[in-house]
Amino acid sequence: MQSFTKGHGTGNDFVVIPDPDGQLTLEPDQVARICDRHTGIGADGILRVVRCESEPEARAHIDDAEWFMDYRNADGSIAQMCGNGARVFVRFLLDQGWAAGEFVIATRAGLHEVREEADGSITVDMGLPAVGPSGCDPMVDVSGRQTPAQAWWMPNPHAVVFVGDLADAGDLLQPPQVNDFGRFPDGQNVEFVVDHSDPTDPERGLAASIRIFERGVGQTQSCGTGACAAALAIRDRHAASEPGSVQITVPGGQLRVTAREDGHIELRGPAVLVARGDFEPDWWKDE
Amino acid sequence: MQSFTKGHGTGNDFVVIPDPDGQLTLEPDQVARICDRHTGIGADGILRVVRCESEPEARAHIDDAEWFMDYRNADGSIAQMCGNGARVFVRFLLDQGWAAGEFVIATRAGLHEVREEADGSITVDMGLPAVGPSGCDPMVDVSGRQTPAQAWWMPNPHAVVFVGDLADAGDLLQPPQVNDFGRFPDGQNVEFVVDHSDPTDPERGLAASIRIFERGVGQTQSCGTGACAAALAIRDRHAASEPGSVQITVPGGQLRVTAREDGHIELRGPAVLVARGDFEPDWWKDE
Repeated sequence: MQSFTKGHGTGNDFVVIPDPDGQLTLEPDQVARICDRHTGIGADGILRVVRCESEPEARAHIDDAEWFMDYRNADGSIAQMCGNGARVFVRFLLDQGWAAGEFVIATRAGLHEVREEADGSITVDMGLPAVGPSGCDPMVDVSGRQTPAQAWWMPNPHAVVFVGDLADAGDLLQPPQVNDFGRFPDGQNVEFVVDHSDPTDPERGLAASIRIFERGVGQTQSCGTGACAAALAIRDRHAASEPGSVQITVPGGQLRVTAREDGHIELRGPAVLVARGDFEPDWWKDE
Repeated sequence: MQSFTKGHGTGNDFVVIPDPDGQLTLEPDQVARICDRHTGIGADGILRVVRCESEPEARAHIDDAEWFMDYRNADGSIAQMCGNGARVFVRFLLDQGWAAGEFVIATRAGLHEVREEADGSITVDMGLPAVGPSGCDPMVDVSGRQTPAQAWWMPNPHAVVFVGDLADAGDLLQPPQVNDFGRFPDGQNVEFVVDHSDPTDPERGLAASIRIFERGVGQTQSCGTGACAAALAIRDRHAASEPGSVQITVPGGQLRVTAREDGHIELRGPAVLVARGDFEPDWWKDE
């Protein structure tokens, strides 16, 4: 029997598979089967929980982190990092009693400081924004109008476009049209952002609501790096140079993005475990 | 802790909730929370498993059936019956050792004979087709062309239209346009059917592939009553008057529909349990 836990962070959902001693070989087609929303458990991805000392990919991190987050996309492909997934991963470790308080986890994107906040939310250090190819600002089609956007890398590529109303993004059944002037050779995620900031009001401060179109996925309820990219665009718009936070409302809930003194971006938000159980034998293993 | 099982029949998936003694009050908003594919377990519906003697709605069936299938749609609304759900319900009863072989289950649509076949598939007596309002044949828009269709009630309403290729149905992101001449006052499901029958070949016999658009849901991987309606249309097309079977390929797998001597329609197909577990407390109960 293989045990699992299902959980989500602002509507981005994951099947967590504990494999502390690295006993489990998880093939791409098995991942796809488990993540199938009709014939499997259903999720946006899988988080395999394995000790760094038991995972060849994570050996370099043995001295700094006990746990490695082996994140897989629903289609079975390998992913570097996932901010919402990291919170669920941390919630699971806390819930199991396998970690506590403030600690460091290893991912394919390196080490990340994480901590549980007093209100139960989880904060993840998402690292430094990356610098992508320079060039013209991208243009995003908004309701048929070419609209100037911003390019941000977290380190994955995002086109962030400000709109007057989130409905302006349309139904998002198809990918938004982006003219990237060559800056996103591997495609990009798109965030449509309504700026609710009032920098003069300390209660409100910097705040935005966003909708997200993830490349290869479609419209999603939440995207951790997308929230970070939108927060960076908001800070840029308001010429925020001091460390500080931006409240980002995604369709699936509330996130808080903080730019630290050292330039690192922190993502804070909820992580909820909804069920624990065991796979029935065979369906996810045999052809 | 509330235990659950997740299972599917040809891709139509359900959260099965055992409640043999009728202890559980399942409010519509709880059903919707559990069926949410991102923040809950995720399913097309819930099957609460309760003894007829413990369920006020099922008291009339105490002498004929031990178990009542309390089926709820994913949005929390009440449903009469679900052919794919009934198979998963039966698989669960068999798996628990709560029933065996051939028996009768109670649903809001009345009593249904069910049995496990030697190959592990489950057969459900879907009852007699109903007779709906008479009138002109409905017309269904197929690739922009108004195409004559058939009206069938199982007992829910279906417009069945023959096409040359399942791709002719288009992307089905929107409901197909149906001119019903007033015969479907509550709307209808639509089945697009490619006839693969070869009545002269006893190996093949009557067979069809179908795509389904369920009213209020969208395109689905499978629909038990839709498969029955398509089989009735195929039998009508080939002037089949003797009892016999039609092989129906739905996007989620294979179903076999049999018209019995007494006019009852039997639906046979697979039912798979994929996982068992327990809900974490609170998220599905509290506001």
